[in-house]
Amino acid sequence: MLDPTKLQDWQIAEESEKSMRPVSRLAAEWGILENELLPYGHYLGKVDYAQVLERLKNESDGMYIDVTAITPTPLGEGKSTTTIGLVQGLAKRKGNVSGAIRQPSGGPTFNIKGSAAGGGLSQCIPLTPFSLGLTGDIDCVTNAHNLAMVALTARLQHEANNTDEFLAKRKLPRLNIDPNNIPMRWAMDFCAQSLRDIIIGLGGKTDGYMMRSGFAISVSSEVMAILAVFTSLRDLRERIGRIVVAYDRQGNPVTTHDLEVDGAMTAWLVRASNPNLLQTIEGQPVMVHAGPFANIAVGQSSIVADRVALKLSDYHVTESGFGADIGFEKFWNIKCRVSGLKPNCAVIVATVRALKMHGGGPTVKPGKPLDAAYTQPNPVLVEQGAANLVAHIETVKQSSIIPVVCINHFSTDSEEEISIVKREAERAGARVAVSRHWLLGGEGALELADAVIDACQEKNDFKLLYESSLPLTSRIEKIARQVYGADGVSYTPEAKAKAEAIEADASKSDFATCMVKTHLSLSHDPNLKGRPSGWVLPIRDILTYNGARFVVPVAGDIKLMPGTSSDPAFRRIDVDVETGKVKGLF
Amino acid sequence: MLDPTKLQDWQIAEESEKSMRPVSRLAAEWGILENELLPYGHYLGKVDYAQVLERLKNESDGMYIDVTAITPTPLGEGKSTTTIGLVQGLAKRKGNVSGAIRQPSGGPTFNIKGSAAGGGLSQCIPLTPFSLGLTGDIDCVTNAHNLAMVALTARLQHEANNTDEFLAKRKLPRLNIDPNNIPMRWAMDFCAQSLRDIIIGLGGKTDGYMMRSGFAISVSSEVMAILAVFTSLRDLRERIGRIVVAYDRQGNPVTTHDLEVDGAMTAWLVRASNPNLLQTIEGQPVMVHAGPFANIAVGQSSIVADRVALKLSDYHVTESGFGADIGFEKFWNIKCRVSGLKPNCAVIVATVRALKMHGGGPTVKPGKPLDAAYTQPNPVLVEQGAANLVAHIETVKQSSIIPVVCINHFSTDSEEEISIVKREAERAGARVAVSRHWLLGGEGALELADAVIDACQEKNDFKLLYESSLPLTSRIEKIARQVYGADGVSYTPEAKAKAEAIEADASKSDFATCMVKTHLSLSHDPNLKGRPSGWVLPIRDILTYNGARFVVPVAGDIKLMPGTSSDPAFRRIDVDVETGKVKGLF
Repeated sequence: MLDPTKLQDWQIAEESEKSMRPVSRLAAEWGILENELLPYGHYLGKVDYAQVLERLKNESDGMYIDVTAITPTPLGEGKSTTTIGLVQGLAKRKGNVSGAIRQPSGGPTFNIKGSAAGGGLSQCIPLTPFSLGLTGDIDCVTNAHNLAMVALTARLQHEANNTDEFLAKRKLPRLNIDPNNIPMRWAMDFCAQSLRDIIIGLGGKTDGYMMRSGFAISVSSEVMAILAVFTSLRDLRERIGRIVVAYDRQGNPVTTHDLEVDGAMTAWLVRASNPNLLQTIEGQPVMVHAGPFANIAVGQSSIVADRVALKLSDYHVTESGFGADIGFEKFWNIKCRVSGLKPNCAVIVATVRALKMHGGGPTVKPGKPLDAAYTQPNPVLVEQGAANLVAHIETVKQSSIIPVVCINHFSTDSEEEISIVKREAERAGARVAVSRHWLLGGEGALELADAVIDACQEKNDFKLLYESSLPLTSRIEKIARQVYGADGVSYTPEAKAKAEAIEADASKSDFATCMVKTHLSLSHDPNLKGRPSGWVLPIRDILTYNGARFVVPVAGDIKLMPGTSSDPAFRRIDVDVETGKVKGLF
Repeated sequence: MLDPTKLQDWQIAEESEKSMRPVSRLAAEWGILENELLPYGHYLGKVDYAQVLERLKNESDGMYIDVTAITPTPLGEGKSTTTIGLVQGLAKRKGNVSGAIRQPSGGPTFNIKGSAAGGGLSQCIPLTPFSLGLTGDIDCVTNAHNLAMVALTARLQHEANNTDEFLAKRKLPRLNIDPNNIPMRWAMDFCAQSLRDIIIGLGGKTDGYMMRSGFAISVSSEVMAILAVFTSLRDLRERIGRIVVAYDRQGNPVTTHDLEVDGAMTAWLVRASNPNLLQTIEGQPVMVHAGPFANIAVGQSSIVADRVALKLSDYHVTESGFGADIGFEKFWNIKCRVSGLKPNCAVIVATVRALKMHGGGPTVKPGKPLDAAYTQPNPVLVEQGAANLVAHIETVKQSSIIPVVCINHFSTDSEEEISIVKREAERAGARVAVSRHWLLGGEGALELADAVIDACQEKNDFKLLYESSLPLTSRIEKIARQVYGADGVSYTPEAKAKAEAIEADASKSDFATCMVKTHLSLSHDPNLKGRPSGWVLPIRDILTYNGARFVVPVAGDIKLMPGTSSDPAFRRIDVDVETGKVKGLF
């Protein structure tokens, strides 16, 4: 067995890839027919979701398990790793088991060292394509998105340069776009901070229209948000056509449909709408599809990926971004609301390290060595920090699901510390398991797998936190109080006015409520650890994504274009010209 | 048999796709082993060129045929169609036959109606992926290119914001980049004129570095130029590392290697370096790989695609952009010089229509109905225009190849007109064939195929127009006089100074000479038709592409970012949500 204490993640992946099954066999053994698999090379493929769902429409679904977490340290607590580890563990007990995770963005990959495919003996392979654009879905999202901006800016130019007669001859009604009211930006999937804020259209009459603009990272695009929540090609087509690109001088929205570019945008997404099929290092299928931001979007893999996997698997494990206050809340009230799927179990990943931070431990910062409080036993800090875990357990329980707490085991954890976590979790009504999947793979996740199987036997009466018919401000109030633990909600005048306008607009009554809040605290303040009390959630703005059908109350920073650091990961990435292997990507 | 006078190109393609062979069978029957084919879905694949070339290194090459043309009208004279038609025709006479064409850019596809996959009964399929990004190579080029710009702009910012000590700790020597001397632009594969000329880096200290910048269309990227001419992964890696992104304040070049981004850029190109495998509607393999501009780059498909095809085929037909003065000249003196391959035959596509234009016929403009001179017999115009054809024949003969003139037959051509073309071509020493491949497919190209087979039997002593050791100005002089028919060359003072600097720089002595000149005339003036005489070629600038290893003497306009028109093709593109089929793309 490979030893993750001695090998780097990429070395384990490389070693495991030597014996991985070709995607054709992987798919066939999972129950996918030959014509339903679109291979991309020998070890990667896309699944024609529409064909599979049509063929298996009368089959029942497998067990649906969501993996979420406590409020993490900035280092992350191993949610993807646990997702993969749990799939591997379950597979040792049951038949068909699968997982679903997001596709990583090129921005972080080339800026910050580290893969998003799990770690240790719980990884998704093949690792290089996973980290390097996979089958091109993000590029398709980028192209679809930018085509809308091409259409917008060309239209601005042609309306400015030409007579009514010229435009009428081409059947182009004047849209009278307001160049100062264009919410959409261009897209690029890198951390290109120098393109955040730009002036475009310099030059002459045929060089566009001079105006302020900017780029956002592709995974923050509304098109990517749509890729995660669409339920059929028709639904995808309709959502794409409703994206608001700009406003006219009267303040009316100008959509992709008004620009006659929505069909062409959808053309870029036909291929991308099929989920990608990869595998764990122990051979179970893993769907990797969509990579939407976790603040302005759902931050989880696609609905179609889960749907297909549920038809094919006895157990399917999907991952939600960030802690249960964000990841599970959006899984529960957005993803499941749209899909109509009912989860059977939720796993809350906890680490002794993060609980110590919540208990008052010193600041944890990426790139800085950990304080001794984290590497030496310190049961007092764990005890003090357990309230954060309890808050997340109570959140999940509101959906009717009894969660399984997974203690993601680190070698520095003491027996006493672990027993405190167990005690507190059980006291809050959760199942608990200690898992060593990083160190041991599926073999190390058996305790977790058994707890999950147990939990899935239990019938739950899954229910959403609120009805769609509830007014927006009441929905926000409910999330703030019942999930975050706030004493109430405050609004800036601007946010208040927008909330009222949305509540008065029947066409937006079924829009999902997608909160923006830091993931580093239950509250809006990343410095408040544990389970903060006596605070009010300040909503400073409310965005609307008409295509994704999201209203986005903003209680935190939205960074749509991260920056490349002074020591970016791309410095260490290279290709071995003898073998064609990419090095340093992880 | 399908009737192209009644069906649109896309209808013929769609009909033909019903019976096309899966790519696995296509590849196997062509002689590609299973592990050498990387399927992309069922009807598209990539060929691992390195494996094939290694396995077959001791095999001899098949016959190598280039398709070029006379000086075209702005409508084009059917070069891609003839390439595909000839492949289909040859296949009726001989065993293994293949073709190679370029991948089209998303810019024109979404702006101007029309496919670049041939037409009528001579087309390359599957057509939708062909027109819609294929296997993502252009996206990979775009990503590799933009990563260099991310590295550049982040470096500018971090050098401006930080102390020497800060930089030294990260092992970042100060590059002192001159923000006013940055030749590289960002890349996007659309006609995004509003991004041609922009100001970036507005905002604060962490929002980049404020400066002038811009976007060029991806297919004009030096990275794309490299994709067409690289000969091995090592060569690709080295070329990428030599790209000059900017200059420092002393005027020294700053390369991708200096920015430590060359390895990561190459990582994006590993997948893209493998040629794509498609097929004609009659089932012969067609390689589609690289889509470089025909002015600042070679304007033809990749060297590796031709190399692989030559190992596998008895006859391999490749296409060169524009007329023989540009397309064949670059095929001959750049592509063949770099590859070391020796062509056996060159086909010059001629139409009665274009010869009439050269003979003094009225202006031909896209979107405008053709003048009666073109639709009614007018042998006088043909006779007067034949000089253009003769010029191209003489050009090809300088390489030692006896060309085959292909009269691409239109229904409006009269017998008398055709016999004039035949007579003039034969008098100039060429073989001639009339071809009806658009109307009849391979069956219509038999006369052409037979002429090509005949020509290939003839031993030629293929020789380049000039030795690499010839000084740059002498090379330009030779191309201007012997290919274009100029009386000489003039230089702006700037161009003269650059030419002298390049001649004095031993490191650039082996750079290919890649002329920029209009394709609409043998001269630099697009209005001069026929075979212009008494003119001098004005070189106004000389560009250097250090990675591609090109010097580019500029005697014409370089448009690196086309504009989207007021009636763009994307308006008519859509997706059938029932079938997933893309409509209106062609």
